[in-house]
Amino acid sequence: SNPSPKFSSKDKGFSFKSRGKLQADAMFASEDYGSGSEIRRVRLGAQGDIDESIDYVAEIDFSNKKVGFEDIFIRYRLSNATTVRIGHHEASVSLDDETSDSNHSFLERSLHNALSLGRSVGVGFETQGEWWSLNTGLFGKPEADNNPGHNEGWRFASRLLVTPVKNEQQTLHMGFAGYYVELDDETDYRLSSQPENHQLAALFDTGSHSASDIRYAGIETAYQYNNVLLQAELGQQTVDYMSLSDASFVSGYVQAAWVITGEQRSYQRGRGSFGGIKPSNGLESGGLGALEMAVRSSYMDLVDGDVYGGKGHVYSLGLNWYPRNHLRVSANLIHFDVTESLEAQPQGASNHRGNSLVLRSQLSW
Amino acid sequence: SNPSPKFSSKDKGFSFKSRGKLQADAMFASEDYGSGSEIRRVRLGAQGDIDESIDYVAEIDFSNKKVGFEDIFIRYRLSNATTVRIGHHEASVSLDDETSDSNHSFLERSLHNALSLGRSVGVGFETQGEWWSLNTGLFGKPEADNNPGHNEGWRFASRLLVTPVKNEQQTLHMGFAGYYVELDDETDYRLSSQPENHQLAALFDTGSHSASDIRYAGIETAYQYNNVLLQAELGQQTVDYMSLSDASFVSGYVQAAWVITGEQRSYQRGRGSFGGIKPSNGLESGGLGALEMAVRSSYMDLVDGDVYGGKGHVYSLGLNWYPRNHLRVSANLIHFDVTESLEAQPQGASNHRGNSLVLRSQLSW
Amino acid sequence: SNPSPKFSSKDKGFSFKSRGKLQADAMFASEDYGSGSEIRRVRLGAQGDIDESIDYVAEIDFSNKKVGFEDIFIRYRLSNATTVRIGHHEASVSLDDETSDSNHSFLERSLHNALSLGRSVGVGFETQGEWWSLNTGLFGKPEADNNPGHNEGWRFASRLLVTPVKNEQQTLHMGFAGYYVELDDETDYRLSSQPENHQLAALFDTGSHSASDIRYAGIETAYQYNNVLLQAELGQQTVDYMSLSDASFVSGYVQAAWVITGEQRSYQRGRGSFGGIKPSNGLESGGLGALEMAVRSSYMDLVDGDVYGGKGHVYSLGLNWYPRNHLRVSANLIHFDVTESLEAQPQGASNHRGNSLVLRSQLSW
Repeated sequence: SNPSPKFSSKDKGFSFKSRGKLQADAMFASEDYGSGSEIRRVRLGAQGDIDESIDYVAEIDFSNKKVGFEDIFIRYRLSNATTVRIGHHEASVSLDDETSDSNHSFLERSLHNALSLGRSVGVGFETQGEWWSLNTGLFGKPEADNNPGHNEGWRFASRLLVTPVKNEQQTLHMGFAGYYVELDDETDYRLSSQPENHQLAALFDTGSHSASDIRYAGIETAYQYNNVLLQAELGQQTVDYMSLSDASFVSGYVQAAWVITGEQRSYQRGRGSFGGIKPSNGLESGGLGALEMAVRSSYMDLVDGDVYGGKGHVYSLGLNWYPRNHLRVSANLIHFDVTESLEAQPQGASNHRGNSLVLRSQLSW
Repeated sequence: SNPSPKFSSKDKGFSFKSRGKLQADAMFASEDYGSGSEIRRVRLGAQGDIDESIDYVAEIDFSNKKVGFEDIFIRYRLSNATTVRIGHHEASVSLDDETSDSNHSFLERSLHNALSLGRSVGVGFETQGEWWSLNTGLFGKPEADNNPGHNEGWRFASRLLVTPVKNEQQTLHMGFAGYYVELDDETDYRLSSQPENHQLAALFDTGSHSASDIRYAGIETAYQYNNVLLQAELGQQTVDYMSLSDASFVSGYVQAAWVITGEQRSYQRGRGSFGGIKPSNGLESGGLGALEMAVRSSYMDLVDGDVYGGKGHVYSLGLNWYPRNHLRVSANLIHFDVTESLEAQPQGASNHRGNSLVLRSQLSW
Repeated sequence: SNPSPKFSSKDKGFSFKSRGKLQADAMFASEDYGSGSEIRRVRLGAQGDIDESIDYVAEIDFSNKKVGFEDIFIRYRLSNATTVRIGHHEASVSLDDETSDSNHSFLERSLHNALSLGRSVGVGFETQGEWWSLNTGLFGKPEADNNPGHNEGWRFASRLLVTPVKNEQQTLHMGFAGYYVELDDETDYRLSSQPENHQLAALFDTGSHSASDIRYAGIETAYQYNNVLLQAELGQQTVDYMSLSDASFVSGYVQAAWVITGEQRSYQRGRGSFGGIKPSNGLESGGLGALEMAVRSSYMDLVDGDVYGGKGHVYSLGLNWYPRNHLRVSANLIHFDVTESLEAQPQGASNHRGNSLVLRSQLSW
């Protein structure tokens, strides 16, 4: 089922497999909130095994005509139950965040994803037992214009998962995650999010303010019954600002996805995430592929203390057609309703309500 | 004849082929117009089939140490006669523009190419009959620093081609193209061109002025008789400026290329373009490769209304040696003569006359 | 022993091999000189043969989220003794510079490397006899934001190597190198170096001053006896400043590396460099890999004329573990002691003394 070539060479155990992704989007929004097209993601990379117990991934993103780092790490299997990954990778704190954008039921992750840490250089441990797994990582700050000769701060993240039910028909997943970030003294902190549409302005935005540290706690759950997947997350981030009052920001979502043609997503227990749809009746075998419908309701509140970063809801309706492996065509209808977005005043106003439609053509291998 | 590996994997129908290009240039100009060297293009990418009726291309350019998007699209064959491509690709408006820089008889395209639209994200249809083909596309604006929350404008382009004569010896090609661009309100428009030498200053330059929309109409023709190829194009672009008088800009060229060693370029009817030279007697079989000579005369007039963007001629003499497939060594001798370049005053003057020599070493696969 | 796939295609003689590298670093320094993590290098590229006598390399670096050019050239074998490379490549002036960062006994090259020219677009000749080799190149200036319409200056470099002893047990290498750079009139010249730790500030720094030309002369020697390698270099750079007095800068180092597990580095005579360690007893065959210890003492004096760019010593102790081919884990302990760093006053002071520790995880193929 692996499309791109993977071969063993004379060098025992070493393998190399090309990776790639391209997503082309078109967007229309009501009320003059914008319209346009973009290459949402274009990525090239490689992955493979170095040894029986060592593998690697290296993937670069070029969207927005900038260089972006995706997974760039080496992973060592210390025992059957434990691996360690060293390099640029994701701090594991959320189901939504761990789900690959290629496999996600929606075109963008939920508002709640703004509270995730994303990728940076660090060391991550993954351990698992019969019905649980634990991911723990210690990281530096995300790569940017490096500022040599400074202390760049550090970040610690942990996520505990339990899977009380896991059989061919059903999966019940529950998780608890937390992180702590000590910021570089000279770094301003800013939390912002577009309303689940990458081509709209960031209607949620705390603005930039100097802060010393950040804490997060979150819970998540998911239940899959054959071709239906329900999931929900809720999290709170607390920021110790330097000159403003400390503030707590909250976000969460619930979503349901139904694969009309019957396919079931796989579940990876170690990192706790669901895989993509592989059409059982794709174009290559004369079929019409798979079809999926999904609905989501998200909420975020960035208004606390001295910060008026916006609060409100986003509702999304998604339709995905998977003509065959590697291909996907999607449409998302998104309604947003945000108030008290005073800090950054995106689009020159503090209250925002409207609808938008996003179309995407995707290839990934 | 395809050099880089293409393989079918377990995944039925999917194939992956590496693409690459590197061009290293050296340049010398008279009259203190400059000298230097550069990596003109360095590209890495992939292409392949996803299915019998679906294929993809993804190629990134890194020249000038910046990320540039080349072809990044998925193409679906709707019927024997019709395909649709979705993603980042060229608006088909000119023979010169459609000819790959790797295959072009000159190191740079003609002045006239400044009137072409280039690539952006969009949907393009290609249809063909016995002796004609039609390319039509709807696009967003070229990718740049995205400006979320705005209407980014759109562009429509169409090109009709007829091939009244097409046999083993002769090809007669005629084309008619037009486009319409509605600009984003906040975008200034600028039309500029170097004198067919990428390392010289842009001697043609309208400067940046706010505009609302742009129209273009062009005609083209080509006649190939065995190893000789003649081609010519002429086009006019009209710009509706916001605060300046509207202006029309004109450009055209005629060129002749003679493959001394006898090889004939292939012709692709769908998009209407000529392919490259494949030496029939390359180094790999003990031969000396192929040799081509080409001459071109180009004209451009960017002086109209309130705009003094320069007008004048460029004459080029080109010599190409193709030692074997994938390799090319070229020299271009270029004479330029431009007047009334008042808008931007490149090199601190408004009239420019001089000669330049460009050398290139090229590998493409 | 070549890990990544190399295959001949239908196109006779053409081969394509993927290249890649990833280095993830963590750093800690005393006295508030900083701490942090970074992706030191992440590279993707290709190399292969075009013909029996022609090959190519194209590699792009993405570290610091910027596009960087590494080797991007085509190499033609003119005779058994002579090759010419055209494109973006290294001006051969130093053993330290010619040693690949993947293969180097330390994480960073010595201070002395600041005097090397690095890569730019040019033509390089390599000739060798029984016991000598000569590398000579003519280059343009390094690629940067191009400044079209200017004379970009040029650079000439040459390096003569003799190998009086070369057998299975011993290699004695001696070299003499020099270069001349004519600078573009509008370019300021700046020489700077971190203290052999990429995440520290540039404690050596002449600041930017307009200059007309630069000259360099250097000597180098290395002696390898089985698994022990000693090497030393010394060089002087002279800068003709426009408005400051001319100045001469000096740097050199001595180093010793001992592969505890007994492996011997290979020696490439043409360009004069030592290769990496291939563990004879790697993880893949049930062993523990190779272990290397290295010490280095470097000196640099950038204080002369009107320039106070710092002078002082850096001492490094390195430990490298090569678990198997392609993999490497390293630790470097670095002591620096720099005075008279008045030009740029890194960290807000002119005298600097401290210690730092750098850890790296590396994969290269």
